[in-house]
Amino acid sequence: MNPIIEEDELLYKAEQAKRASSSLAAKSTEQKNHALTAIASALRKHCPAILQANESDIAAAQREGMSQSMIDRLMLNQSRVNAMADALDNLARLNDPIGDCLEEWDRPNGLHIRKMRVPIGVIGMVYEARPNVTIDAAGLCLKTGNAVYLRGSRSALESNRTLVGIIRQALSKTDLPEDGVQLLEDVSHETADRFFRLNGLIDVLIPRGSQKLIRTVINKSTIPVLETGAGNCHLYIDESARPEMAINIAINAKTQRPSVCNAIETIIVQKKWFSRYGESLIQSLIASGVECRMDPSVASNYPDLPVAEEEDWKTEYLDKTVAIKIVSDVDEAIRHINRFGTKHSESIISETPSHVERFFQSVDASTLYHNASTRFTDGEAFGFGAEIGISTQKLHARGPMGLPALTTIKYIVKGTGQIRE
Amino acid sequence: MNPIIEEDELLYKAEQAKRASSSLAAKSTEQKNHALTAIASALRKHCPAILQANESDIAAAQREGMSQSMIDRLMLNQSRVNAMADALDNLARLNDPIGDCLEEWDRPNGLHIRKMRVPIGVIGMVYEARPNVTIDAAGLCLKTGNAVYLRGSRSALESNRTLVGIIRQALSKTDLPEDGVQLLEDVSHETADRFFRLNGLIDVLIPRGSQKLIRTVINKSTIPVLETGAGNCHLYIDESARPEMAINIAINAKTQRPSVCNAIETIIVQKKWFSRYGESLIQSLIASGVECRMDPSVASNYPDLPVAEEEDWKTEYLDKTVAIKIVSDVDEAIRHINRFGTKHSESIISETPSHVERFFQSVDASTLYHNASTRFTDGEAFGFGAEIGISTQKLHARGPMGLPALTTIKYIVKGTGQIRE
Repeated sequence: MNPIIEEDELLYKAEQAKRASSSLAAKSTEQKNHALTAIASALRKHCPAILQANESDIAAAQREGMSQSMIDRLMLNQSRVNAMADALDNLARLNDPIGDCLEEWDRPNGLHIRKMRVPIGVIGMVYEARPNVTIDAAGLCLKTGNAVYLRGSRSALESNRTLVGIIRQALSKTDLPEDGVQLLEDVSHETADRFFRLNGLIDVLIPRGSQKLIRTVINKSTIPVLETGAGNCHLYIDESARPEMAINIAINAKTQRPSVCNAIETIIVQKKWFSRYGESLIQSLIASGVECRMDPSVASNYPDLPVAEEEDWKTEYLDKTVAIKIVSDVDEAIRHINRFGTKHSESIISETPSHVERFFQSVDASTLYHNASTRFTDGEAFGFGAEIGISTQKLHARGPMGLPALTTIKYIVKGTGQIRE
Repeated sequence: MNPIIEEDELLYKAEQAKRASSSLAAKSTEQKNHALTAIASALRKHCPAILQANESDIAAAQREGMSQSMIDRLMLNQSRVNAMADALDNLARLNDPIGDCLEEWDRPNGLHIRKMRVPIGVIGMVYEARPNVTIDAAGLCLKTGNAVYLRGSRSALESNRTLVGIIRQALSKTDLPEDGVQLLEDVSHETADRFFRLNGLIDVLIPRGSQKLIRTVINKSTIPVLETGAGNCHLYIDESARPEMAINIAINAKTQRPSVCNAIETIIVQKKWFSRYGESLIQSLIASGVECRMDPSVASNYPDLPVAEEEDWKTEYLDKTVAIKIVSDVDEAIRHINRFGTKHSESIISETPSHVERFFQSVDASTLYHNASTRFTDGEAFGFGAEIGISTQKLHARGPMGLPALTTIKYIVKGTGQIRE
């Protein structure tokens, strides 16, 4: 870095990003798409340099005793670099939300008001080991006309530096400003704390990674945060549920990919259904390799299985473990979910329309399902093309976030000399 | 208060509000409107009790030497109480946004997805002296199916206690839960700091009052904040501006109500226009009682007027004072606005379409005007019926906020047994 940057890298790059954001906001869809494909080509071309930088990160991580699963996340190879490039090409083919007129109307005094979709400005991205987030975030932000200021982890610094160097070099040959993508290379905690308080320079922070990271950003930031996060999701099997469908969905929602946020953690079963089909449900789960932790009210029938404790109702296992809760009716199920859920995805299996309606009305979560697996809560399954994450907050964006989550609005008012009386 | 409440009033009432929010979310438009008019009637009926409580607040404020302008804000009288009641009746007549289906679509696997508008949950309202905010906030939140947790100022505690007592008593005779409206009576700063961190019980905080109050909430809160605030607004008079229209709008935007956030603080004038019509603009402003602080580049022609300093470009005077900035073209005007503006309302007076387009494209603000006064940025002038405030942030809501700003969305997904492959 040059001496000016070194003096206060954090602010210098934030100001560059802010300046670039004005220019980015005015770029056409064609200009942005061309830049995305140019970056994709550059990634493929410079793959050896990326892998070399990544090897140095991996070597350092090994010296410091990083766990194998963390090293897996940090690791890049030819096919992962190609996947990153392909994702950018895919992004270039998606519809550009910027410039859409969302509403327009006339006022009695002759003013014409249009509500237009515009970029947010500068997005601050805070993330952990995975270097693919660097490319993913840069692509999503550029597609929506935003500048991005990246704060990755220390362990991925060499990889991120090389990736951002390639992005900026590719941008310098396009109509988009290379300063639209900035990497904070000072990865100290002190500088991160200042990063979280750059109001006026960063418009929104998006943390991606562990619950701990997200919690830290929310607690320390004075900038609005787009919160993604935990999924303590439930499947409620109602008295009238068809047994085969309920069991099939239970197995899918628990085991198809247990480590993700839209997998279920507790199966809530109506007691009459349980007395008829519970044995079949439990045996199917066990046969699929799932550990079942049983509600104390039925635990005596399952002496070989662990008993669920209060803590189990709160736990996102992210593993092949599930808690089984027995309830007397849909209202008790709703109370349980609203007490212990994380407002992510909740499903009811039922053939009783009034119960389904009550569930839809009263459960507080981003996405509610009837007779379907919770595993569909994501941008791809919703048909959004690209996904920024799954919002678990209620402001701005909720549930799977597509490109519009990276936009805001601007009112454009045309007059003929109107003044306020 | 009863002993349980006293033990931890803050948490006790937060939990009551949260429980009530589930019930409120399921109420019909008719039930909500009936409750609003019931509260309006109760306010009119109990006006003497309200005025008596208010007198005790006023007496305490006078003893403590509160300024007359603050006492004016705190003061209620018959006509102010009637205005509060009328506002509730008006709210009852507005369209209810809850339950609207914003989008719906089918997926190739047969899932049907609906994006529904739902209440946010519990709104935390933090405000200063004006007791009318108590009624205003309760009305807006109930209309949108939200519970509200009010934290007013110590100086208005008796008034607020009486108002909330009347609201809750009125609600107890309707289908809405009286626990949907809660007043935090412990107005210590320590408890306020805990209030700002009640994640999981309060879904969003809305501060209303001074810049200092808003800043405090943003800095201390871990809950998402709906930020309303400062307006350092500009009027840019382009070379082609019609002189009469430009001067007329300048006077209106500065003087019609100088203390509000959508009044202008700096007039930016293209230098050729200024050399022709500047004298007329300045004389008109002076004749309207406005102090003009002149750009150094033309200050020598106005020896009797103060010279604008760097600080003036940043200042929201909220008074009959205006800074005059001279620029060579629209691009310089845009740069000035983007550097010093607060992203609120900005206007261009011009007959050159390409300049207007550039201004609309490049100025970063919630509301941009062509040939109109900035004074129209509010819910009433926009035709929203009710206004929660004017958002100066970019997430969730921007510009004038109507009832939809107090809502979020929920995805309702109907299936026939779909599982994720």
